[in-house]
Amino acid sequence: MLVVMEAAARPEQIEAVVRHIEKLGFRAHPIPGAFRTAIGVTGTAGKADPQVLENFPGVKEIIPVSHAYKLVSREAKPDDSVINVSGVDVGGNGVIVIGGPCAVESLDQTRTIAERVKRAGGQLLRGGAYKPRTSPYSFQGLGEEALEILARVREEFDIPIITEAVDHESLQLVDQYADCIQIGARNMQNFSLLKSAGRARKPVLLKRGMSATLEELLLSAEYIMSEGNYNVMLCERGVRTFADHTRNTLDLSVVPAIKRISHLPILVDPSHGTGKRNKVLPMSRAAIAAGADGVLIEVHHKPEEALSDGPQALLPEMFEQVVREVDAIARVLGRALQPALAAS
Amino acid sequence: MLVVMEAAARPEQIEAVVRHIEKLGFRAHPIPGAFRTAIGVTGTAGKADPQVLENFPGVKEIIPVSHAYKLVSREAKPDDSVINVSGVDVGGNGVIVIGGPCAVESLDQTRTIAERVKRAGGQLLRGGAYKPRTSPYSFQGLGEEALEILARVREEFDIPIITEAVDHESLQLVDQYADCIQIGARNMQNFSLLKSAGRARKPVLLKRGMSATLEELLLSAEYIMSEGNYNVMLCERGVRTFADHTRNTLDLSVVPAIKRISHLPILVDPSHGTGKRNKVLPMSRAAIAAGADGVLIEVHHKPEEALSDGPQALLPEMFEQVVREVDAIARVLGRALQPALAAS
Amino acid sequence: MLVVMEAAARPEQIEAVVRHIEKLGFRAHPIPGAFRTAIGVTGTAGKADPQVLENFPGVKEIIPVSHAYKLVSREAKPDDSVINVSGVDVGGNGVIVIGGPCAVESLDQTRTIAERVKRAGGQLLRGGAYKPRTSPYSFQGLGEEALEILARVREEFDIPIITEAVDHESLQLVDQYADCIQIGARNMQNFSLLKSAGRARKPVLLKRGMSATLEELLLSAEYIMSEGNYNVMLCERGVRTFADHTRNTLDLSVVPAIKRISHLPILVDPSHGTGKRNKVLPMSRAAIAAGADGVLIEVHHKPEEALSDGPQALLPEMFEQVVREVDAIARVLGRALQPALAAS
Amino acid sequence: MLVVMEAAARPEQIEAVVRHIEKLGFRAHPIPGAFRTAIGVTGTAGKADPQVLENFPGVKEIIPVSHAYKLVSREAKPDDSVINVSGVDVGGNGVIVIGGPCAVESLDQTRTIAERVKRAGGQLLRGGAYKPRTSPYSFQGLGEEALEILARVREEFDIPIITEAVDHESLQLVDQYADCIQIGARNMQNFSLLKSAGRARKPVLLKRGMSATLEELLLSAEYIMSEGNYNVMLCERGVRTFADHTRNTLDLSVVPAIKRISHLPILVDPSHGTGKRNKVLPMSRAAIAAGADGVLIEVHHKPEEALSDGPQALLPEMFEQVVREVDAIARVLGRALQPALAAS
Repeated sequence: MLVVMEAAARPEQIEAVVRHIEKLGFRAHPIPGAFRTAIGVTGTAGKADPQVLENFPGVKEIIPVSHAYKLVSREAKPDDSVINVSGVDVGGNGVIVIGGPCAVESLDQTRTIAERVKRAGGQLLRGGAYKPRTSPYSFQGLGEEALEILARVREEFDIPIITEAVDHESLQLVDQYADCIQIGARNMQNFSLLKSAGRARKPVLLKRGMSATLEELLLSAEYIMSEGNYNVMLCERGVRTFADHTRNTLDLSVVPAIKRISHLPILVDPSHGTGKRNKVLPMSRAAIAAGADGVLIEVHHKPEEALSDGPQALLPEMFEQVVREVDAIARVLGRALQPALAAS
Repeated sequence: MLVVMEAAARPEQIEAVVRHIEKLGFRAHPIPGAFRTAIGVTGTAGKADPQVLENFPGVKEIIPVSHAYKLVSREAKPDDSVINVSGVDVGGNGVIVIGGPCAVESLDQTRTIAERVKRAGGQLLRGGAYKPRTSPYSFQGLGEEALEILARVREEFDIPIITEAVDHESLQLVDQYADCIQIGARNMQNFSLLKSAGRARKPVLLKRGMSATLEELLLSAEYIMSEGNYNVMLCERGVRTFADHTRNTLDLSVVPAIKRISHLPILVDPSHGTGKRNKVLPMSRAAIAAGADGVLIEVHHKPEEALSDGPQALLPEMFEQVVREVDAIARVLGRALQPALAAS
Repeated sequence: MLVVMEAAARPEQIEAVVRHIEKLGFRAHPIPGAFRTAIGVTGTAGKADPQVLENFPGVKEIIPVSHAYKLVSREAKPDDSVINVSGVDVGGNGVIVIGGPCAVESLDQTRTIAERVKRAGGQLLRGGAYKPRTSPYSFQGLGEEALEILARVREEFDIPIITEAVDHESLQLVDQYADCIQIGARNMQNFSLLKSAGRARKPVLLKRGMSATLEELLLSAEYIMSEGNYNVMLCERGVRTFADHTRNTLDLSVVPAIKRISHLPILVDPSHGTGKRNKVLPMSRAAIAAGADGVLIEVHHKPEEALSDGPQALLPEMFEQVVREVDAIARVLGRALQPALAAS
Repeated sequence: MLVVMEAAARPEQIEAVVRHIEKLGFRAHPIPGAFRTAIGVTGTAGKADPQVLENFPGVKEIIPVSHAYKLVSREAKPDDSVINVSGVDVGGNGVIVIGGPCAVESLDQTRTIAERVKRAGGQLLRGGAYKPRTSPYSFQGLGEEALEILARVREEFDIPIITEAVDHESLQLVDQYADCIQIGARNMQNFSLLKSAGRARKPVLLKRGMSATLEELLLSAEYIMSEGNYNVMLCERGVRTFADHTRNTLDLSVVPAIKRISHLPILVDPSHGTGKRNKVLPMSRAAIAAGADGVLIEVHHKPEEALSDGPQALLPEMFEQVVREVDAIARVLGRALQPALAAS
C-alpha cells in the first residue's frame, strides 16, 4: 500500500501517519518527492485495515498495491494446473468443448442432445438441473430429477457431466451425481456456497460474476481452494456494460490476463457471453485464439421449444462446426482438441 | 413483445413468424410499415420463450415489451407501502436514518455506537454478524455471538436491529434475533436465499446488486413477495461503473424511478455507495432530496481500529450532523425525520 | 509511480529497473517487503513515459501515483474560484439555475421561454445554436441565426446567455455573441477545441464526457486553463453505464469529489443526466444537496413540438418549482439561490 | 416505435395518444393485449420527435424500434464493401495488418519501423502526427513535419500510410499527405470533423468511441457517408467498463454484430484495446478469429524510449509473429493475409 500525502502536508502529519502504520504492525517507508511525500507500507499485520489512513489529516489518497489472493497465484504455483474431470483433462495442452442444453427438460431431450454432443466430439455434457432465473415465474429446473437424467445419460454415452449448484442442498446433490460442480455468475460472491464447494469432492467450474473484476474472480476461487478443493476452473461468461448489441460483453482479454497471473484453467461461455446464436461460433473461435482452455456451448435440437435460453442455443449441426473450428484454431497455437473419452 | 422483420423479408417469412407465435399460444398483430413489417405479440402463454423467433429467417430483431414483475408494481398496488419494523414505519411520510457499525466486533463496541446512534435520533441499528468479504482471509463476522450482542443492545436502548443473512442457516438465526433481515448486494440474485427470505416472518431490506438493472432488482423483490412476505424494502448502494473517484457509483436517479413504478420503500446506503467518509454526508442529503425514504450509515467511534470498512465509517458526531441535515432536507419535501422509538 | 516486482524477481532484475528509472531522469526508491520489492519513482523528468517498465523482466505491475493536472488543483489554488458570467457569479455562496430550450428554434419560442426563465428566477439562459446530434438526419440547430436570436433576447430580458460551440468556427461566433461558451460532453476530449476555448475571452462551461473519469475531466479543464482562460466551470451530465432506467446515470458523487480536489465550480445537468422529465426535479434537488453550484435545466413551453429532446424538457411552471426547491435545499447548506440580474 | 400504455390507462388517454401520433404525421396501430394496450407507430414524418409521448397521461413507456442509419446498413447494400487504400483492399477476402509507431518521432525512427513492418508483411503503415493526449503537458505530435516524414517513408518502402486528423486544419493536411484518414475514438462524435471527413477524397478509418453503442458508431459512419465519402472502415479499440485488468475492454463481439447489419469493413486495434503489450498477440488472433478484416498494431523498435504509449508497443520481432499468426487464423476461416504491395 502507498499513502500519498498532500503537497501541503506538514511534517507532523506525515509523522502521525507513519506512527499509525507502525501501530497497526506494518512497516512505513517514507519517500520524499519533489512536491509531496508518499509512504510505502509493507508487512503483513493483523486484522486492522490500513485504508483508514485515508481519513488522516494531510493524506491525499491511498493506493492499494498487494493482492489478497495466494493459492490461485502463479507466484504460488508456477506451472499450469491441469484438472481431471472424470478422465477429461482441463487446462493442459488439449482444449475442450462442453455442450448441452441450458436446462434438462426430459430424458428424451437430454439423450438426444447428449448423443449429438458426444458424436460431434464434445468432451463434457452440460445441462441445468437448478436454474437461477431472473423472474420467479420462469421455469426453475427439474432439480434432482434432472440430476438422475444426467447420470443415466452419462452412463449411456460415457460423457462426464457438469451442472450448476445454487445452494448447500443442491450442491450436495450435484457433488453426488455429477462430475463437476458449476457455480454460476450470480453466485460468484455467494461466499457461503463457495466454502461448501471448497469442501466438495468434485472439481468446480467457477463463472465470473457480471461485474466482477479479475481480482474478485480470483479471490472467489481462493475461497474454494482455501477450504481444500484445489480443482478449480474459471469461466468468462460476459460482463455488464453499456453495450447493447449483445446480452453481455464477452471480455476475452481476461483470458491472457488470467494466464499471466494464475495457474488455473480458464474456459469461455460464448452462449451466455453474447446471448445470440449467431455470435456463438465466431466468439468460440476467438476464445480459443485468445488462449482459452475450452468453451461451454448451449446446444438444443429444438431451440424454438426450449424452456430457457432458446435464442442462444446452437443446433447440433452448428455445434459440430464449433468443434471443428475450435480444433483448427487450437492447432494454430500448437494445441488441439482433446479427444473425448472412448466409449467403455 | 415486438418482432421486427427485415426490410427485405418475404411474405412467407412473415407468415411463418405469425404461425409460430400462434403455435406458442400468443396472438400476433402484424403492423405493416413504410419499409418493413413489425409484429406485435400479446397474450400470456405457457412456458415457451418467444425470443427464439430472433433466429427465424427474415427477422431483424426482437424487442421485449412487457415486464415480468407483478406484486412489486404500482399497477398492482397504487399506494405506497409502509413497512413496520418493530414499531418504526419505513416508507411513509417520515424518513429514517439507520446507523451502526459495519461489523459487530464486541458488546462494548456495539453498545457505545448504539448509544450514540439512538441519542442522535437514528431509528434503527445496523451491524454485521455475517460479513460477505471479497477475500477469504478477511474478518468474516462473529456470527451468532454478534446476533446475541445486537439483541442485548436492542433491549438496552430500545432500538430495532437490522442485520444481514448470507445463507439459509444464518437467515433463520437472523429471523429469530433481529427485527429486519438484510439481503446484501452480492446475494441479490441468490434466488434460493430470496425464497427463504420470502418465508421468513421479519421484514426484508433488499440491496441492489452491483450491476443489477432496476428490472432485476424488482424481480428479486418479486421472488420474496411471491413466497408470501410482502414486507420488502429496497436499497440503492452504488453500482459498478468505470468511474474511480468513488468505490461504487451511487445511482440516485433510481429513487424517483422506483417511486414511479413500484409501491415499495427505497432507502440509500451512501457508505457503501461511495466508500469514502467525506462523501457520506453530501450523498445522504442528496438521497433524501431525490426522494428516498431513508439512509443507512456506517458509524464507528474508533474507525481506525474497525475490523472492516473503517475508511467509510462516520464518527458519531458526524452521524449527528447527517441526522440533522436529513431532517432539514426532508422538510423541503414536506416530510420530516421520523421520531425514534421512545425508551420504554 | 510505484513499480511492483514479482515475488520471484531476482536482484539483477530489480537493479535493471532502478537503472532505467534513473536513466529516464527520475529517482528510484526501492522498498523491500516481506514477499516482494516495490520501487517508488519520484521527480519530474522529460518526455519519456516510465510506464514502459511494465514490460521489464520481473516487473509485476505499475501503479500510477501522481496526477498530471496542476492549474485546476486545489493544491495550486486553495480557495474556491468564483466565475463571473456577465455579472452572474458562479461558484460562490449563491447557487444558480440555468434554464432554456434544448435548441433555439425561433425568436418567438426563445422569447417566450426566456421570459418565463427570467421571471421564475433563473440567472442564465441556455439554448443550442449548434446541436451535436447522434444522427446526421436530425435537426442540427439554426447556427448563427440562433446566436442572433439569443443576443436579442438577452438585451430584452437582461439575462446572460450560454450556448455550445462545436468547432473553431462556431466557437469564434459563440465567443462573440454569448456570455459563456459551452463545450459539450462529446467534445470533452476534442483537445483542439479545448485549446481554442482556452484562447477565447468568455468563460467556459465544460461538460463531462459520457465515459470520462474525474481525472480526465480535470485534465480537459487543464487544457483550457493552460492556454490562459482561467474562467472554467465544470458540469456533470450523466455517464454511460449498464443502467437503463435513465438515459444516462447521473453521478452526483462527483460533486463532492471535485470540491475536494479542485477549486473550480461544478454544475449539474439533470435534463441530459436523466433524459426523463419526471426525474429532473428530484435530481435538481439532489444535485444542490450534494453541493453543486447550480443546475442546467431544459425548459420548453410546448415540449411536444420541440425539435430536439422534448421528452426531457420541463414546462415553465415545473421550472418555477425547480427554482423554488433549489433555493430551499441550498438554504439547508447555508447557501441560497443567487438573485438574477436586476432589469437594467 | 411502440407506445406502451399503463394497465389502467383509460380509453380517452389511448385516444389522445393516437391523435397526437397522427398529428405528428405518423400512423398509429393500437394493439389491445390481455392487460394493457400498446400502440405501434409507423411512417416517416417531419422533424418532431414522437418520444414526447412518454409524458402523456396513461403512457408507461416508449420503445424505439427503427434505426436512423441508412447508407451503412446491409439493407441498403447487401454485399460487403471493399475499400481500396492506395492499392490495398480492406474488407474483402484478405485480412490486413497495419503496423507502426504510436507517434512519428523522427525520420530515422519512422524509417526503421516502416522497414520492419513492410518486411514482416504489414500492408499499411500507421503513425501519429497529431496526438490527442489526455494531458496538455504530454507530447502532442510533430504535426505537418510528421506528415512529411510519413510521405517520404511511403515513397521509400511503397507502403500506404494512415494517420489521425483531429480538426479541420489537420484533416486537410492528412487528406493531402496520407492514404487514409483516421478519426480517433475521442472524436467519434465530433460531428463537425465527421462532416469534413465526408468531404475528403481519402478513405476514412473511424474508431469506435470509448462508450459508443454500435448504433452510435454506425450513425457516425453515416455522417461521413451522407456527405459523399463512401469509403469508410470501422475500428473497434476497446470500450470503458469497470474491468481494470486492461486499459480498455476490447469488445470483439461487435465484429460479428457489425458484419450482420452493415457492409462496412471492421478492423480491431488490440494495442489501444488492451493497453498491454502481452495482450496484443492473443487479442490479434482473437480479432481475426471473430471475423475482423484486419488489425492495427503499435510497433516500436525501442519502446522504452517511445514518446507515447510505449508500454503497449510491440517490438518488430513480435509484430512478425502477429502477422504470421493472423495469417494462420485467417486460413481457418477460409481467408488469408493479403499480400503487401510489391515494391514498385
